[in-house]
Amino acid sequence: MANTPATDRRVVIEAVSPKVDCGRFAAKSVVGDPIVVKAKVFADGHDAVVAVLEHRRSGNDTWNETPMDFLGNDSWEATFTADELGTWEYRITGWVDHFVSWAEGLKKKFEAGVVSDVDLAIGAELLAAASDRSKGKPAKTLQGHSKTLSDTSIHEEVRVGLALSEEVTQLMGAHPDRSRATTLENPLPVIVDRQEAVFSSWYELFPRSWSTEPGRHGTFADVEAHLDYVDDLGFDVLYLPPIHPIGEKFRKGPNNTLDAGPKDPGVPWAIGSKDGGHMAIHPELGTAEDFRSLVDAAAEKGISIALDIALQVSPDHPWVDEHPEWFKHRPDGTIQYAENPPKKYQDIYPIDFETSNPEALWKGLKEVFDHWIDQGVKIFRVDNPHTKSFSFWEWLITETRTAHPDVIYLAEAFTRPAVMHRLAKLGFNQSYTYFAWRNSKSELIEYMSDLDEVSDFFRPNFWPNTPDILTEMLQTGTRAAFVSRVVLAATLSASYGIYGPAFELMEHQPLRPGSEEYLNSEKYQIRQWDLRSGRSLAPLITQLNKARRAHPALQRNGNLVFHDTDNEMILAYSKSSGTDTVLVIVTLDPHHTQSAWVDLDLAALRLEPEQQYQLHDLLTDRRYVWTGSHNFVQLDVEGTPAHVFHVRRQTRTEQDFDYYI
Amino acid sequence: MANTPATDRRVVIEAVSPKVDCGRFAAKSVVGDPIVVKAKVFADGHDAVVAVLEHRRSGNDTWNETPMDFLGNDSWEATFTADELGTWEYRITGWVDHFVSWAEGLKKKFEAGVVSDVDLAIGAELLAAASDRSKGKPAKTLQGHSKTLSDTSIHEEVRVGLALSEEVTQLMGAHPDRSRATTLENPLPVIVDRQEAVFSSWYELFPRSWSTEPGRHGTFADVEAHLDYVDDLGFDVLYLPPIHPIGEKFRKGPNNTLDAGPKDPGVPWAIGSKDGGHMAIHPELGTAEDFRSLVDAAAEKGISIALDIALQVSPDHPWVDEHPEWFKHRPDGTIQYAENPPKKYQDIYPIDFETSNPEALWKGLKEVFDHWIDQGVKIFRVDNPHTKSFSFWEWLITETRTAHPDVIYLAEAFTRPAVMHRLAKLGFNQSYTYFAWRNSKSELIEYMSDLDEVSDFFRPNFWPNTPDILTEMLQTGTRAAFVSRVVLAATLSASYGIYGPAFELMEHQPLRPGSEEYLNSEKYQIRQWDLRSGRSLAPLITQLNKARRAHPALQRNGNLVFHDTDNEMILAYSKSSGTDTVLVIVTLDPHHTQSAWVDLDLAALRLEPEQQYQLHDLLTDRRYVWTGSHNFVQLDVEGTPAHVFHVRRQTRTEQDFDYYI
Repeated sequence: MANTPATDRRVVIEAVSPKVDCGRFAAKSVVGDPIVVKAKVFADGHDAVVAVLEHRRSGNDTWNETPMDFLGNDSWEATFTADELGTWEYRITGWVDHFVSWAEGLKKKFEAGVVSDVDLAIGAELLAAASDRSKGKPAKTLQGHSKTLSDTSIHEEVRVGLALSEEVTQLMGAHPDRSRATTLENPLPVIVDRQEAVFSSWYELFPRSWSTEPGRHGTFADVEAHLDYVDDLGFDVLYLPPIHPIGEKFRKGPNNTLDAGPKDPGVPWAIGSKDGGHMAIHPELGTAEDFRSLVDAAAEKGISIALDIALQVSPDHPWVDEHPEWFKHRPDGTIQYAENPPKKYQDIYPIDFETSNPEALWKGLKEVFDHWIDQGVKIFRVDNPHTKSFSFWEWLITETRTAHPDVIYLAEAFTRPAVMHRLAKLGFNQSYTYFAWRNSKSELIEYMSDLDEVSDFFRPNFWPNTPDILTEMLQTGTRAAFVSRVVLAATLSASYGIYGPAFELMEHQPLRPGSEEYLNSEKYQIRQWDLRSGRSLAPLITQLNKARRAHPALQRNGNLVFHDTDNEMILAYSKSSGTDTVLVIVTLDPHHTQSAWVDLDLAALRLEPEQQYQLHDLLTDRRYVWTGSHNFVQLDVEGTPAHVFHVRRQTRTEQDFDYYI
Repeated sequence: MANTPATDRRVVIEAVSPKVDCGRFAAKSVVGDPIVVKAKVFADGHDAVVAVLEHRRSGNDTWNETPMDFLGNDSWEATFTADELGTWEYRITGWVDHFVSWAEGLKKKFEAGVVSDVDLAIGAELLAAASDRSKGKPAKTLQGHSKTLSDTSIHEEVRVGLALSEEVTQLMGAHPDRSRATTLENPLPVIVDRQEAVFSSWYELFPRSWSTEPGRHGTFADVEAHLDYVDDLGFDVLYLPPIHPIGEKFRKGPNNTLDAGPKDPGVPWAIGSKDGGHMAIHPELGTAEDFRSLVDAAAEKGISIALDIALQVSPDHPWVDEHPEWFKHRPDGTIQYAENPPKKYQDIYPIDFETSNPEALWKGLKEVFDHWIDQGVKIFRVDNPHTKSFSFWEWLITETRTAHPDVIYLAEAFTRPAVMHRLAKLGFNQSYTYFAWRNSKSELIEYMSDLDEVSDFFRPNFWPNTPDILTEMLQTGTRAAFVSRVVLAATLSASYGIYGPAFELMEHQPLRPGSEEYLNSEKYQIRQWDLRSGRSLAPLITQLNKARRAHPALQRNGNLVFHDTDNEMILAYSKSSGTDTVLVIVTLDPHHTQSAWVDLDLAALRLEPEQQYQLHDLLTDRRYVWTGSHNFVQLDVEGTPAHVFHVRRQTRTEQDFDYYI
């Protein structure tokens, strides 16, 4: 429906949300989740206004219409739910409703005893006009009621009663005069993802270290043999660093040394050799068939394989010869390697997005993603997307997701906020964050508030460690440090991940003091891990992921409330979804036992003051009964550095032994 | 310049301000005022980015370019000044500058001693390309320097020195490669008004009460004879309620009674009689010539006459016969009078903007404004604009101000925030506010913060009273109440006004308890005022307006800082502009003497800690010497309910007796 001319429009629609950068980008949601639309809708004067929300899958011809609720002060709200993946859009239409205005006035006049025949005749005209706009039975009924209203032989009270009746109100509401309606000029887009885009638990591992025989290069088959380990931990995304052939020129040795020996395996991010490039598999990992087998076996356990795509090449990559124009050439004819002056990274050639034929480059790069999608990969962790063309990402993600709306992109960008936000706006479904470096109570609270402000388009994925990030906190090596950080990651953010087994085995030696690099990092050498170590945090992580799967409160963002504690080293927060509430109390001190009085916001926990409630610790299975807001906790370093409580409210049902739900 | 294709663009421009509703509306500024433009401008990767601000008067072909300053964290800022009234526009262009990136890298490599000939050859290529982009001497110079850089027979240190020299930096900055630049898609508009749109002091009077002979209807000539009174008070806008013929049908009597006698003058807002409508003058006020004479005499004193335009008619208005289609007709053929059910206002017919030919109505209404503009009127106070079509206002204001950019519209809308804001966005240059009902410290502080959020487009005009608003505070009748409210109005907002002489004579009897209507209101009857009353606040108001004229700090908004006091009844705040700072300390208690310790924000006052400074009270001419932030004040009800201090900083100059500037 085209908009009415400006001269006829009386209704204004503004302050619409969700809206990202004036509608230039899409807001993000999940299939089946309620999408709450708010707006200010108002008209000049004092006439009644009616507003409806219209939504559709982009490309559909027809809109689905939902009446909006008036919240007061010109604010309106309505909700829609998308039942399919892809891009949806919504808009709002509002109009002045003369029947509603008239009925409200009539009611007041009737109460004041000043109704006149003219007043009722006006109503009769409104009903007759509505009759003209409708068909069949409603048209006939409205015509009849219109005649009744204007029939002065009928008692005024009867006519007023009819005018204000439920029947007439409903009939008039169903056939409004929208000839002067205002419709939001440009529909606003919402990208609807599958749930894994917001709720996912990631486990990163280097396949080459998973051989069961010391000294043998690990393979996809080894990883497949360990799927139960990952599954038992409760992770649903198994994420592999680049699996492509590794370059030989300027290959790095252990601990990032420049003099690699002939047996050193090299860095997986130095992609490409005589064995192929981004669409090939490093021969020592196995074949394309082995990879498919891993993908399929994982899928059977409900685990998705995520690939790390790093759009850069080693000097040995086939593209260097096949597409020299994709790289920057120096005046001496050589290709420009990566630099961070005065540092040189001669093992890496960046791709030159300022190439003379960007369309060909873009298509070539898209082939990489298409290839792995064809191999069953639906999740890509993109390496340093902020050092590649923004326009390319927007195009790539839009194109691949138009064909495969279930594909998920995670942006591995640790850079300035505006850049990280831009990547999310361009289409990345999830994003790495600054979580690893937010340690103190105030830092964590402030950061969660920052994330809340961009929650329409930016979905965090919290990582306590990565192969590049062994934080100062984890370098303390205490169990409390690891427990605290993984509990924070898994409960503050609906998506989180760990780089294992370094994490669960509490690997904590840095390359050198002050460095965040791991000593003997898997990035440069093959490691072996004692998965059965008694010190492993695997049992705790298993409980944590069970809690995440059981509790909807932990499966979305935007539902976080912090609770006061009188100790800077103890953080308390809750998340709620429907009747499900989880309360987390966690130490921030890796070294000492800490205690605190916690002052709970009972309303946020949906508890009555003085109501007794049970806290069921999902990590230890212990139960506590608390009352009121003020309660004491003590968190020790080795035993219980964190509580993840299911808040169980007491019920009056006597049929159950357990009185808490 | 058209934008480069998306495949080539690397720079992103976002978070641009000032911007109102995504650029749908213009931000507002004043001729000669700096317009500060901010944005986030960034690119992928680590290359250097350069940004420029471009501005022009709308309709001009060429842009004026200003380099933007980098503020860190992707933020950039630049300022432009508009030297003409009308609509201006600005946009931003940013690009990746490979020379700057290269020069930064070269410097680091040189410091690390790892410069190679290839590095310098890259620079030589960049200089040669810049030479190709330029002409004449710069082209030749760049070409020569390019050759030097690539000449391996010249010592590396000499070539590096040349590459990083001021000369090469400037030449390269003047001839950048903008072939891949990003330009903001849609220029953003800024309306540039004359200073009176933001800084103005209004005095409202009913001419019919200004006769010097008791019993005679006041005239324009009487007002002209009193111009010195208004001028001495220091006001620069003299604003008259509607001056048109007053209707006779359903004319209201004194105190809004329904049974007007034959001599009752009626309500100026019931516009139109056999003597004419909105373009006519009420005969008892004088002739068109008398009105022109008043306008001209006022102009000689620097006073603008503002007219109140109320787009509604009495049943006697000529339009009722000439343009019956401009009004809503009821089924019985009568015209619909104004209603607020169950109340009827039979003396007023609203205009029906849902008329079948709105273009004709709009043109007819515009003739009214054009007529008074032709009579020398440049300021319109529009009565209840929120009950007329928003689209009409946008069209009217745009049209009239395109021809007459010095015309100013004040919106008299006391309604919901979204509606008041919308009117300002549509073009109203000033707006009435909720100031009259903001009395407590927290109310005032919160309201000023609300106004600050909309300051890009909404310019407040603060009124302690109007003919419709005798506030509860003023009904106390104490001098402190009146002084407090006028000082707050005149110093919190750059524009303010009073309805006089009711204000300066401290008229404070309401029509009845609980009502905000004046008893014996001039709206319904002719009054006489004793301007020479000893109780008149005229001397204080004169000082207040002198202070406003002398102090730039009081002539703009957006420069307000509140200071802490330990008494809820004492409010302290300052405004600064350049080196000018005014500090106001005012009681909010109309009844009792109040004292407080004031804790001044010395940085906001541009004072050093422990620095001695002089406070010169602009109302009383008294001087106080204070030191540091913590100081005591006492404000009494009759003597000094408010201080308006010029903050004078001590200087070290011994040539002057007075050590404070």
